[in-house]
Amino acid sequence: MSDAPSATPHRERGLRARRRREARQTHAVIAGVKRKIPPYELLGEEGLIRIEKAADAILEEIGIDFRGDEAALRLWRGAGANLTGERVRFPPGLLRAILKSAPSAFIQHARNPARSLRVGGEDVVFAPAYGSPFVQDLEGGRRYGTLADFENFVKLAYDIPWLHHSGGTSCEPVDVPVTKRHLDMVAAHLTFSDKPFMGSVTAEERAEDSIAMARIVFTREFVDANCVIMGNVNVNSPLVWDGTMTRALRAYARANQCAVVVPFILGGAMGPVTSAGAIAQSLAETLAGCALAQLERPGAPVVFGNFLSSTALRSGSPTFGTPEPALGSLVVGQLARRLNLPLRCSGAFTASKIPDGQAMQESAMSMLAAVQCGAHFILHAAGWLEGGLVMGYEKLVMDADFCAALHVYLKGLAVDDDALALDAFREVGPGKHFFGAAHTLAHYETAFWESAVADNNSFEQWRDGGMKDARTRAAERVKRLLAEYEKPPLDPAIAGELADFVQRRKAELPDQWH
Amino acid sequence: MSDAPSATPHRERGLRARRRREARQTHAVIAGVKRKIPPYELLGEEGLIRIEKAADAILEEIGIDFRGDEAALRLWRGAGANLTGERVRFPPGLLRAILKSAPSAFIQHARNPARSLRVGGEDVVFAPAYGSPFVQDLEGGRRYGTLADFENFVKLAYDIPWLHHSGGTSCEPVDVPVTKRHLDMVAAHLTFSDKPFMGSVTAEERAEDSIAMARIVFTREFVDANCVIMGNVNVNSPLVWDGTMTRALRAYARANQCAVVVPFILGGAMGPVTSAGAIAQSLAETLAGCALAQLERPGAPVVFGNFLSSTALRSGSPTFGTPEPALGSLVVGQLARRLNLPLRCSGAFTASKIPDGQAMQESAMSMLAAVQCGAHFILHAAGWLEGGLVMGYEKLVMDADFCAALHVYLKGLAVDDDALALDAFREVGPGKHFFGAAHTLAHYETAFWESAVADNNSFEQWRDGGMKDARTRAAERVKRLLAEYEKPPLDPAIAGELADFVQRRKAELPDQWH
Repeated sequence: MSDAPSATPHRERGLRARRRREARQTHAVIAGVKRKIPPYELLGEEGLIRIEKAADAILEEIGIDFRGDEAALRLWRGAGANLTGERVRFPPGLLRAILKSAPSAFIQHARNPARSLRVGGEDVVFAPAYGSPFVQDLEGGRRYGTLADFENFVKLAYDIPWLHHSGGTSCEPVDVPVTKRHLDMVAAHLTFSDKPFMGSVTAEERAEDSIAMARIVFTREFVDANCVIMGNVNVNSPLVWDGTMTRALRAYARANQCAVVVPFILGGAMGPVTSAGAIAQSLAETLAGCALAQLERPGAPVVFGNFLSSTALRSGSPTFGTPEPALGSLVVGQLARRLNLPLRCSGAFTASKIPDGQAMQESAMSMLAAVQCGAHFILHAAGWLEGGLVMGYEKLVMDADFCAALHVYLKGLAVDDDALALDAFREVGPGKHFFGAAHTLAHYETAFWESAVADNNSFEQWRDGGMKDARTRAAERVKRLLAEYEKPPLDPAIAGELADFVQRRKAELPDQWH
Repeated sequence: MSDAPSATPHRERGLRARRRREARQTHAVIAGVKRKIPPYELLGEEGLIRIEKAADAILEEIGIDFRGDEAALRLWRGAGANLTGERVRFPPGLLRAILKSAPSAFIQHARNPARSLRVGGEDVVFAPAYGSPFVQDLEGGRRYGTLADFENFVKLAYDIPWLHHSGGTSCEPVDVPVTKRHLDMVAAHLTFSDKPFMGSVTAEERAEDSIAMARIVFTREFVDANCVIMGNVNVNSPLVWDGTMTRALRAYARANQCAVVVPFILGGAMGPVTSAGAIAQSLAETLAGCALAQLERPGAPVVFGNFLSSTALRSGSPTFGTPEPALGSLVVGQLARRLNLPLRCSGAFTASKIPDGQAMQESAMSMLAAVQCGAHFILHAAGWLEGGLVMGYEKLVMDADFCAALHVYLKGLAVDDDALALDAFREVGPGKHFFGAAHTLAHYETAFWESAVADNNSFEQWRDGGMKDARTRAAERVKRLLAEYEKPPLDPAIAGELADFVQRRKAELPDQWH
């Protein structure tokens, strides 16, 4: 797939492109949230170096298989790696040298420039969960996701200001053939939202379709020079890069778009049971993926990704939101900073089947690790249930409320004359209350974060209101958000071009269901 | 009240005392959990100094009222403070100079020496929630606490290894007169548990009764030289120390027992709405309380306590587990380290009425702040609901499970040859799984933390098991723990002395219900 042909005359398209570029320049707002707190530094220098050396030993001695992608093997050979069949071994320092061309931060442009995001530096981006075949809500229970569900999740992520990003495969729309659903998903992100989003990675041609659709909206020239779409590519851990993934990764890099490179390691299964070893492995696998993107196109944006989890070893079940990955994330953050790469890490993880106490306890531990470790792009920040098998409507809203709390957390604690409030003490004095103090009145609208989901009322008020638990309140909020949703404006000509593209590609592609 | 008279002949008591002392010497085990992770340092030196200077300004310029305690005023006068009636102002440096006699760490002895705890240094102690008039469980709903409930909570805290301490007023036993319930509570801690505990502070004579009961168990000589009981004293914020509290504080200090000194500040009510100001106030109030204990008896153990919360300012409702106090706790930890005093901070706080998603999300944020800030004694670590009005049976078990997770978290991340697992990579290689690897088999029993409450099974297993949420599973665990409870042994002679003491004091004291 190359760029999209179009019925629109060339001159008109050129004018529209200029108009869009100008709009972006005049709205140089960067959404997202700034980190004003230091990261939580868990390990000292010595421990970090030991993990880096272990990763180097894995890369040099054991190597990584790159399977079914001749072009990738050619790139590695050209770069000076040692190949034995599909096994690639990396001389010390090679990957870090290649990665010098990767940007430490970049902007992902949104079609609404006010929603463009910086990925890296002080900025933090929250994106909804990704990849669940099932969805769940209080009324309908657990069921396979559909395109209607998918569109609902795009609308919810658009409605909620604490989610800066529209995400990618918010749920699998299993009512659409596997070969075609990427078209509907990308179209939904581009029409029901104007926030940045992620495209398909399940096949090279689907990655290229995704990028082609982005070009319709942003123009080919703009896309060639700027990041407007991301692809989230997984390593087939341990130590295997599958050709489907590397070809998708290279497609994004070739188009100067961002590949998020993420090993998925359940300790004891796809990696060792000890965290330090799993982190070393993850580091090795991510370094190789990010470097491959740089070989494909030096300077293409990449995100250093990480997904640590644990296993209930007696049953073999994966576990989430446990202490080991929370600590591991802090270390991964330290390693990413030493590489000077933007980091994707952690999310609102849980193994719970419903958004109950287990779910929110596990998710809170996991999300706090994400912001404390210094992650820049936090995928799965809202909606995740059941180890990622389920996207939950109420869970999305409950997690997004925690994202709102984390906006305040990331601001840190102000220490200035106003915050120290000595005048308020002088005014109030011992034994009086501060409700009516000038300092309180000046701040009372904004002083403390207020949740949109929590019930802070008295027991009697809560009882008289029907004794609703958090999930029930979240279900009401889901309905309200969807009812109040208003589609962001989109140039009808662009919308038409997108629809034409989807229609044409659907006609070309076969129907396959798995 | 002074020491307890007793029917036991003097010689026999002396022998028993020696036996107990010897038992303690041969069981020099310190329970609790060691902190192997660094604290999370939020503010830089400059911010900390500004807060300390604001506290000093409050102390010097505004001062603190010490109401209804002539002896406290005499102590302050003698120490060089400036008094105007009950208003006490403190010259710069006075309180810090007085506090030089306070220990940076001390042991609270349990009647079972294997359960003695160090408070301070690397040790962390989890204790159940304190002070709720109401209790709640899934079957019985919300109701006033009784002595039977109180005893249940002592039994549960005894059963759960992740709670190192029996706590104090786990719930108010409102079926016993206010004037007498301290006797039943202390007796319950001393007979249904052998973990360290807290005594009464609601009146000086109740504090002395509590200490007298401890002397029956530990002997007067041992108690005079060692900490065996704690009293948790609250400041009447803002900037008032009430005579009831200072007399209880002095009673504990006089007996060489530990006073935990805790301002309770809801921002916007008992303190300014801005965190830095509330922290400065808290620092001023705690410094004064801890110093008063040192004036009463230099060297008496004290704990620097802190309780920060926030307010939903439009409704006036207190809120808990929000981001502001989580950040505030990190700063309080930094300030406590600069004073070299043991810290009590935070807990499993929530405003939720039930242990739902809100409760566990808020509690997780709050508890993580407690361990990250470097707190040594974490009261309210389990059971807290509804802003402290309710002690929850299921909540206790769910929070204690999080305490178990925090035991693993506090251990940090090991980075050694075994954890880096290079041999496992050599054995497994790319594309294979680690389930059968020698490294996995060597670790699989202990590699990952496993929750006693979380359900990590598949959806189908969970569905077939009755689709139980976390609270329902916790309710089952409560029943199992209470059914399996076995009373720890207690010398029948001591048990008899305690019962005699309670009976005699109950006969002496009037019945009062509020």
